Amino acid sequence: MIRFVALVLFVLLTFGSRLASAQAPGHRLPYVPVVTPNGSTLPFTMKDGVKEFHLIAEPVKREFAPGMIVNAWGYNGSTPGPTIEAIEGDRVRIFVTNKLPERTSVHWHGILLPNGMDGVAGLNQPHIEPNQTYVYEFTLKQNGVFMYHPHSDEMVQMALGMMGFFVIHPRVPEVPKVDRHFLVMLGEWFVEPGTGTPNPNIMTDFNLFTFNSRVWPGTDPWVVKKGERVRFSFGNLSMDSHPIHVHGYRFNEVGTDGGPVPKSAQRPESTVNVPVGSTRTVELVANVEGDWAFHCHKSHHTMNAMNHDVPNMVGVKQPPALEERVRAILPGYMAMGETGMANMMEMGRPKNTLPMMTGEGPFGPIEMGGMFSVLKVRAGITSYADPGWYKNPPGTVAHEALASEVPHNAAGHGGKGGQNGQGGPAKPPP
Amino acid sequence: MIRFVALVLFVLLTFGSRLASAQAPGHRLPYVPVVTPNGSTLPFTMKDGVKEFHLIAEPVKREFAPGMIVNAWGYNGSTPGPTIEAIEGDRVRIFVTNKLPERTSVHWHGILLPNGMDGVAGLNQPHIEPNQTYVYEFTLKQNGVFMYHPHSDEMVQMALGMMGFFVIHPRVPEVPKVDRHFLVMLGEWFVEPGTGTPNPNIMTDFNLFTFNSRVWPGTDPWVVKKGERVRFSFGNLSMDSHPIHVHGYRFNEVGTDGGPVPKSAQRPESTVNVPVGSTRTVELVANVEGDWAFHCHKSHHTMNAMNHDVPNMVGVKQPPALEERVRAILPGYMAMGETGMANMMEMGRPKNTLPMMTGEGPFGPIEMGGMFSVLKVRAGITSYADPGWYKNPPGTVAHEALASEVPHNAAGHGGKGGQNGQGGPAKPPP
Amino acid sequence: MIRFVALVLFVLLTFGSRLASAQAPGHRLPYVPVVTPNGSTLPFTMKDGVKEFHLIAEPVKREFAPGMIVNAWGYNGSTPGPTIEAIEGDRVRIFVTNKLPERTSVHWHGILLPNGMDGVAGLNQPHIEPNQTYVYEFTLKQNGVFMYHPHSDEMVQMALGMMGFFVIHPRVPEVPKVDRHFLVMLGEWFVEPGTGTPNPNIMTDFNLFTFNSRVWPGTDPWVVKKGERVRFSFGNLSMDSHPIHVHGYRFNEVGTDGGPVPKSAQRPESTVNVPVGSTRTVELVANVEGDWAFHCHKSHHTMNAMNHDVPNMVGVKQPPALEERVRAILPGYMAMGETGMANMMEMGRPKNTLPMMTGEGPFGPIEMGGMFSVLKVRAGITSYADPGWYKNPPGTVAHEALASEVPHNAAGHGGKGGQNGQGGPAKPPP
Repeated sequence: MIRFVALVLFVLLTFGSRLASAQAPGHRLPYVPVVTPNGSTLPFTMKDGVKEFHLIAEPVKREFAPGMIVNAWGYNGSTPGPTIEAIEGDRVRIFVTNKLPERTSVHWHGILLPNGMDGVAGLNQPHIEPNQTYVYEFTLKQNGVFMYHPHSDEMVQMALGMMGFFVIHPRVPEVPKVDRHFLVMLGEWFVEPGTGTPNPNIMTDFNLFTFNSRVWPGTDPWVVKKGERVRFSFGNLSMDSHPIHVHGYRFNEVGTDGGPVPKSAQRPESTVNVPVGSTRTVELVANVEGDWAFHCHKSHHTMNAMNHDVPNMVGVKQPPALEERVRAILPGYMAMGETGMANMMEMGRPKNTLPMMTGEGPFGPIEMGGMFSVLKVRAGITSYADPGWYKNPPGTVAHEALASEVPHNAAGHGGKGGQNGQGGPAKPPP
Repeated sequence: MIRFVALVLFVLLTFGSRLASAQAPGHRLPYVPVVTPNGSTLPFTMKDGVKEFHLIAEPVKREFAPGMIVNAWGYNGSTPGPTIEAIEGDRVRIFVTNKLPERTSVHWHGILLPNGMDGVAGLNQPHIEPNQTYVYEFTLKQNGVFMYHPHSDEMVQMALGMMGFFVIHPRVPEVPKVDRHFLVMLGEWFVEPGTGTPNPNIMTDFNLFTFNSRVWPGTDPWVVKKGERVRFSFGNLSMDSHPIHVHGYRFNEVGTDGGPVPKSAQRPESTVNVPVGSTRTVELVANVEGDWAFHCHKSHHTMNAMNHDVPNMVGVKQPPALEERVRAILPGYMAMGETGMANMMEMGRPKNTLPMMTGEGPFGPIEMGGMFSVLKVRAGITSYADPGWYKNPPGTVAHEALASEVPHNAAGHGGKGGQNGQGGPAKPPP
Repeated sequence: MIRFVALVLFVLLTFGSRLASAQAPGHRLPYVPVVTPNGSTLPFTMKDGVKEFHLIAEPVKREFAPGMIVNAWGYNGSTPGPTIEAIEGDRVRIFVTNKLPERTSVHWHGILLPNGMDGVAGLNQPHIEPNQTYVYEFTLKQNGVFMYHPHSDEMVQMALGMMGFFVIHPRVPEVPKVDRHFLVMLGEWFVEPGTGTPNPNIMTDFNLFTFNSRVWPGTDPWVVKKGERVRFSFGNLSMDSHPIHVHGYRFNEVGTDGGPVPKSAQRPESTVNVPVGSTRTVELVANVEGDWAFHCHKSHHTMNAMNHDVPNMVGVKQPPALEERVRAILPGYMAMGETGMANMMEMGRPKNTLPMMTGEGPFGPIEMGGMFSVLKVRAGITSYADPGWYKNPPGTVAHEALASEVPHNAAGHGGKGGQNGQGGPAKPPP
């Protein structure tokens, strides 16, 4: 019986793999393929029972959002590089061609493999010189969401965008099955406003924050059908933890770059804090329709091209002429407005530089940028194409109150709180 | 039977709610009310079975500690805003009046609700313009410690102090019950020394760190009776994780902004790292008396108004005249002393600026500031008013040793260690 | 029976302790002693059934790596201070002599003890003035990996290196037993290039990152025998979380400074994020031979003496004469190379300053610094001395591919991905 199942599996897997290599529709694979929004999955070919992949390290031009192109480094024409997807038990052979102006190597982050395949140049293998092609080969002994990135001049190469996901599906599919699985690589960049090349020397004061090397509103929406079981995996090879917050849902952390988290250890969260050098996979059942914000909760990380040295003008009256004079000296200067920044979204700025906050929604400006996207949950859809904005059922949207509804205390400071700082029962129980 | 229990619960809850709306003592509520040190709880009124709350977004003057007032933004006269407290199953209606100079909105962080009530202006609702009052209404389907904050020009509005807690008690009270539950919002600010308005452009180099928008020694002590089961919930809407450390105890992480953590997944900690965009609830039984420090463990976060660019004088001999001369050029200049900083606590400084380290304890200066408070555990107290400093039982305080007690090696470097860096057994087992 | 076991344990423990105080080989202790790489363990003496330790707070010269000596503060001649090691149930008496130029105190981080022994100067005890010796005494009621550090001018004293581990072994040894247990204190420093004294005013822009106050390649390798059960404990009293990544393995988080993590709550990871003010203990079985990189995954933290303000030259052609001219003005200037930084490792630099990236491996330069070490797993070793570089079995090292092996698409961008950003099944199931 076990032999029979193994045979069926073997046939299925082999057959499925052949289909995949021929770009067949995903539902004929023995797994539900992952989705890399604004990215792609690396094709493979089967050769004598081994899945062969080919990564090409090279400079790439990446459009972060319409109006801004960055001189990045990546793989196969994009940053992040294409997602590698395989099955536990597969033998994989990965060719890496170096078309960069300097040497490189690839580390398979989180993957159990022979020491000589681990990719730390100098320690585990020679550096891959420009125009060389190296070959890595190993058998996948685990499942989970892992990553690949250089381990040669790695600070520079990662700061310029060289990284990608490596997904290993379990040999025995999970029950209940996952219907949708999105992969999002978190990125931090410093690109001097008006220029296009990231500065890898910057350690803390970044000014662009990306989901798969795109900034809102350049990020594709994440579309799911109501009722689907959905996973999101976040990878982080930047310099800071990124707390990724979902609106309207809570999720469980079901995986790390060490593999699946046992059920007993899973915790509910509405924000998953993704540490550097890690992946985090969260899961939810999409049972409430709507357009749900999904973003890094560090507020500066949902802004674009912020210059953190601008003077503070909150509460300072600025005659219109003043700001213009400042801008004559400092091109691209955007003063913090006297009443906040919401009115500063689209001010004049250097070329190849995005507005700080932007994105138009169904109810007006969303005033975001950077690490922000929208989870769109819809009943009855027949395609994952962008369904447009959510149509709220009547009476379910926050709205202006009628004067007669507003409580009497609206005029003053109203409810100043019924308890002081040490409130609660005045006396502890005896 | 179940119906009877439900009826009793219904009566209790309704009755309790009516009492609460009349500001009755907390012990007649169907739950133990939370405590927001240096803050307050928002009162509500019952209207046709709905709990009505009223938040007023407005500029506020906040005293961080005696001697320093900050021009912040908050709700109902304070930052953080008053805590909203309700019960799982309640229907709530929340009016939000905008008395700010710019538009705003409110997002109910972590709460499961209809998409149109989620509060992302532009995406889920229109912005609330100045002088408008909006109304949000939804039914609470979960329990835990959540937050509210703007989602309109949110970087600026949160940097200025707009945030608060939203606590939902479970419908069926927990066993064993929690006797005390403190809520503490963590804050980071940059206020240029000598000024009073926070600069929201700052992303990393903050200079004031607060518990409920207060700095030590302006933070109220957290007073509990010996033996009580105590919870602490920390909320973080700043730009950095804050690792909050308790002295003399360990606690379990029992909740997040996703809800209660299952028993099997709880971990013991003496420091709870609170990520941005999250709440963390920890629990301990206060079984050891004393005055226990409770603070952020990032050492700069227990300092006030630090200027991180001052030159380094450790080990440099400074004639007294030198520093005075520097201060003539740089008002407020505080040199790092040649022997450390402990002697620099109360030096001259600009107006509306706190000393860097301060706070007088029973044994001398505590030399702290910022995110620091004291958990005071006392047997036999009949009030939660500050009981003063702990009186240690004789013989239980660290003290100077008699010369005769000190080991012989005290004169030199003494114990240089019995093992070298690769110590342990000289040989591994065969 | 239980009494008999207790008696045997008592005899063993007492006997073991006596041996330890006489510096007997570790395997005769009732526990496997921990290893502090590049550090030491503090000896003790038994006095009337109490384990007496003696810490001496004092300035120390610490060699971070050959070529760089730092004027630090520490204990007993080193930073971190020597590791204190004891057994649950022990009564300990710790003398602390202050040989610093300013007052100090010691806090026993994570340890359950009487309030007067907790070490917060001003709050729990007087400050220890220079040349005073204080005595702390308490009974150990728990087990785990804890820390000690000052709580008097603590920002300065910790920034200068004052910290150490405090390990409490369980009274009943764990099954299966741990064969090797390494302790690594994580450190961040700012030492202006060309100088030797850390600047404690720096809050975010550090330039040296250490394992036990050493930088790669000054860090000892962590040597284990194949098949051993190994623990690594990381302590963090710096200003940032450090995500410590192991190559080729995954581990479980088995302990914090709150004590052991229950089995049900353990999660697999390949990177353990160590928050500030915490310890994290991870465990793996070393079943795969090799030289495995083990490092902080924040890429700037595996660099030395980085000046984060240098201009960005990636993609900019620099005639050789230009850089020399810049260096004439800015001694120690290291331009970012036009093709990355790998070729900049050993450029001219100020005295007492380490190269940014260095370390020679068996396959060429490893190009690392800072928080980096190598886990060396070997079968059949009879000593934990450095076994040299791993000899990979033939055919297990990534290597240049033969031209005939390389897939046809190597010439161009090749596999641009079989799926677009919203790939997967074209239609959701009905």
